[in-house]
Amino acid sequence: MSETNGNRENTGRRRTRRGGGHDANRRADAGISQLDWTLPVNPDKPTEPLDEEGVAAIHDAAMRVLEEIGIDFLNDEAKAVLKAAGCDVEEGSPTVRMDRAFVMEQVAKAPSTFTITPRNPARRISIGGRNIVFGNVSSPPNCSDLDRGRRVGDRESFRDLLKLSQYFNCIHFTGGYPVEPVDLHASIRHLDGLYDKLTLTDKVCHAYSLGKERVEDGMEMVRIAAGLSHEEFDAAPRMYTNINSSSPLKHDYPMLDGAMRLAKRGQPVVVTPFTLAGAMAPVTLPGAVVQQTAEGLAAIALLQAVRPGAPVVYGTFTSNVDMKSGAPAFGTPEYMRATQMSGQMARFYNLPVRASNACAANAPDAQAAWESAFSLWACVSAGINKVYHAAGWLEGGLCASYEKFVMDCETLQQMIRYLERVPVTEDDLAIDAIKEVGPHGHFFGAAHTQARYETAFYQPFLSDWRNYETWEEAGAPQAPEHANRIWKQILAEFEAPKLDPAIVEELEAFVARRKKEGGAPTDF
Amino acid sequence: MSETNGNRENTGRRRTRRGGGHDANRRADAGISQLDWTLPVNPDKPTEPLDEEGVAAIHDAAMRVLEEIGIDFLNDEAKAVLKAAGCDVEEGSPTVRMDRAFVMEQVAKAPSTFTITPRNPARRISIGGRNIVFGNVSSPPNCSDLDRGRRVGDRESFRDLLKLSQYFNCIHFTGGYPVEPVDLHASIRHLDGLYDKLTLTDKVCHAYSLGKERVEDGMEMVRIAAGLSHEEFDAAPRMYTNINSSSPLKHDYPMLDGAMRLAKRGQPVVVTPFTLAGAMAPVTLPGAVVQQTAEGLAAIALLQAVRPGAPVVYGTFTSNVDMKSGAPAFGTPEYMRATQMSGQMARFYNLPVRASNACAANAPDAQAAWESAFSLWACVSAGINKVYHAAGWLEGGLCASYEKFVMDCETLQQMIRYLERVPVTEDDLAIDAIKEVGPHGHFFGAAHTQARYETAFYQPFLSDWRNYETWEEAGAPQAPEHANRIWKQILAEFEAPKLDPAIVEELEAFVARRKKEGGAPTDF
Repeated sequence: MSETNGNRENTGRRRTRRGGGHDANRRADAGISQLDWTLPVNPDKPTEPLDEEGVAAIHDAAMRVLEEIGIDFLNDEAKAVLKAAGCDVEEGSPTVRMDRAFVMEQVAKAPSTFTITPRNPARRISIGGRNIVFGNVSSPPNCSDLDRGRRVGDRESFRDLLKLSQYFNCIHFTGGYPVEPVDLHASIRHLDGLYDKLTLTDKVCHAYSLGKERVEDGMEMVRIAAGLSHEEFDAAPRMYTNINSSSPLKHDYPMLDGAMRLAKRGQPVVVTPFTLAGAMAPVTLPGAVVQQTAEGLAAIALLQAVRPGAPVVYGTFTSNVDMKSGAPAFGTPEYMRATQMSGQMARFYNLPVRASNACAANAPDAQAAWESAFSLWACVSAGINKVYHAAGWLEGGLCASYEKFVMDCETLQQMIRYLERVPVTEDDLAIDAIKEVGPHGHFFGAAHTQARYETAFYQPFLSDWRNYETWEEAGAPQAPEHANRIWKQILAEFEAPKLDPAIVEELEAFVARRKKEGGAPTDF
Repeated sequence: MSETNGNRENTGRRRTRRGGGHDANRRADAGISQLDWTLPVNPDKPTEPLDEEGVAAIHDAAMRVLEEIGIDFLNDEAKAVLKAAGCDVEEGSPTVRMDRAFVMEQVAKAPSTFTITPRNPARRISIGGRNIVFGNVSSPPNCSDLDRGRRVGDRESFRDLLKLSQYFNCIHFTGGYPVEPVDLHASIRHLDGLYDKLTLTDKVCHAYSLGKERVEDGMEMVRIAAGLSHEEFDAAPRMYTNINSSSPLKHDYPMLDGAMRLAKRGQPVVVTPFTLAGAMAPVTLPGAVVQQTAEGLAAIALLQAVRPGAPVVYGTFTSNVDMKSGAPAFGTPEYMRATQMSGQMARFYNLPVRASNACAANAPDAQAAWESAFSLWACVSAGINKVYHAAGWLEGGLCASYEKFVMDCETLQQMIRYLERVPVTEDDLAIDAIKEVGPHGHFFGAAHTQARYETAFYQPFLSDWRNYETWEEAGAPQAPEHANRIWKQILAEFEAPKLDPAIVEELEAFVARRKKEGGAPTDF
């Protein structure tokens, strides 16, 4: 003992020994054991930085923005709907003012929870309440991996990232393109892209609100893939879109158009203002959340006027910018608090809420990990229902990293396990085991341990928990290297989810016909 | 627009622009700007996985362990104190049983909050209530940095890590040795070690409970460094010790001896059972917390019997082990929940609570970052008062990493900023700014922004937020490389805190005399 300091906190690793076994809860494939598909329910009270007066003050200020300043709707149909509903719409101006009674009346029509059922009904997800679901990274122009470095997105990478999204059970829905397949011409990209999505995955999917053709094609392809009649498609949520306001205080034509098209057919719309504090929104967090709330509720009120009861989600993307460069920052103290405040506002309006697992780092290094962990913590502590960009996001959204994708899935699994309730039965209290082991033994061999060790603890598939010497002998691999090996194995062994060949044929025919017709105009 | 997908979430980085300026809240030295010294207060309600019945069940089970099974006290003085206080102490056996009335009566004597005042009174810290303070890594046998790799600890590294602990304002107290200075003979290590600590730092410090001589020398040197009389030293907490139980169900001689010596002089004792679930404690989290509570309260009851009102802390180190290797794991779902449950139990007993910012990773990579971020989140969400090992810990505590130290200080600063309340005044709601900017501008130039941008957001000193191209041109540095540059600059520019030369002389004389006397025996 003379060479040690007597502190036991650093010695357990050497003194403890092999327990053995594996977790029966997991499926072993692609060389890893992952959690089964599960829809996590958040058991904790959300962290709420605002008191009741704070929530009321933000609500009141958002209402004043809608009443006194107004929101620009760059879409004549939207303006006409709102004018008909009694809003103050100036002739020749895009600005619409709406009073709080109207806004609250419309918002009250939106469901507080809803389900979305993809082509595989076993992948149905619930949005709202205490549910929390995770989606893959959406819309980066670039992708990267350790072997090929960073490059502009193409269809092959797009398909790779879809396969990872399908493989991991912790990914509950697919977002926008996990990387932009730039080698597909923009006029037909949505056709090939959605074809890939619907054949490589069977999870809830998204269509971009980028003009009539893309949106209508998207709904039609989702309908075909699920083998639904038009009536069946319209009867319940089958897919969703996300629209961003063009902050400050503007909603653009194509996003409003797409949102209204989906709402008319009962399909969900996530409304996510682009309120980066200090840039497109006030530099103060309450101010940015005021603007986010005004922009978001303006579109939600429109959609309820278009179709009462249309499923909608209050989205938050509020974060701060780096005041040195103007670049958006994520996983910051400001991001965490803004996300929690957004959760409070969404609950005040009885709406489901969406946020993101984002970071600003350029590489899948420690910075990426702590920024993402803080973003994820923000989502979990805020009571977020739908977590966008939950796996794969780097560089403030400019790059999808294969390795980061796998690393994020590791932390998502940990969060899913964290969200399980801790039971406290007489058995869990373990007094008999404590008595049995007494002061001279250890618990490895106790019957209480043996009966439980296979499932007692979450077992990571990525973390390297070997001791230093063994790890060093193995070449001292860091997290991205492990992730690199894992995604390769997943892609090598990937099997697409089952889909009726007749449906595949119908999808192919649809894509071929629409390509022949020229796809979508690219001049919007 | 034809080549983009219209999703704005990935484009802000390119579109936003330079805001300029720096944060007036920070001091610029060693090339970085760090937060000022501050004592954070946690404004949030803790996350509580146990309901009231759960807390009551764990309490009841812990009391049954103390009543029916008992705890071994391998120290005759401790046994005598407890016997005199009415506990059931068997002749010739180390086992002591105490009934719940006695335990609760003793625990009720402990203060729920207290302060510790080091030689620089400006570095006084408060332990308990909503306070949260951070300390450096304690007691690893090894250290590492990017230049020299991993090596056994020595005095030079020990001093380096003390300098970093002094430099960073987010480190509120120094723990045990930040790395074991193995080149100092164990008989005199505590003398040279504490001399370094008291001359290189002016923060609250710790002495190991490793035998009479070390403990008495430690108290004497802290007294000398602060220029106090013996009466002044005894009048208020000036330092602290941490003891670990030798789980299961045992308290060792030297730790009990040291704890009682400090308690007698009114100095705080943190009691931290070593209850790794599945190894030294039951495999179930409630069972591990039951055992932790029983072991912890047994020592706390002893210390209150020794000196009623002695400041004590309920420590938790409960985590799970890797059932494949038996090695302890940290930052896991189980660690997070155990830490939160421990916070609940400590509040039930009105005691301050200690936990750790720990990880199992072997390198300062992404795994280290997410494990540490989850540990830190556990501490913050659990309402932990004293966070041990908050900076520098790697490999389950077997290694102190220079780079990880700096990286952890970055995340600690972010937590400190996160813990500040978000004000919601009329000014913060920013309606006038939203009106001023309108739908066609941005907020960079707004008066509201200009008046606030220097302090509106936390500005990290370590995170690399440059765009990819600039970052790549700079050699694509990852987080540890930035940290490497920063610690070198801090050490190069380090100036020890002021200390009266007469006091330095007195300390030197004390060390010299005690060395001459042989220091401490090394055969305990």
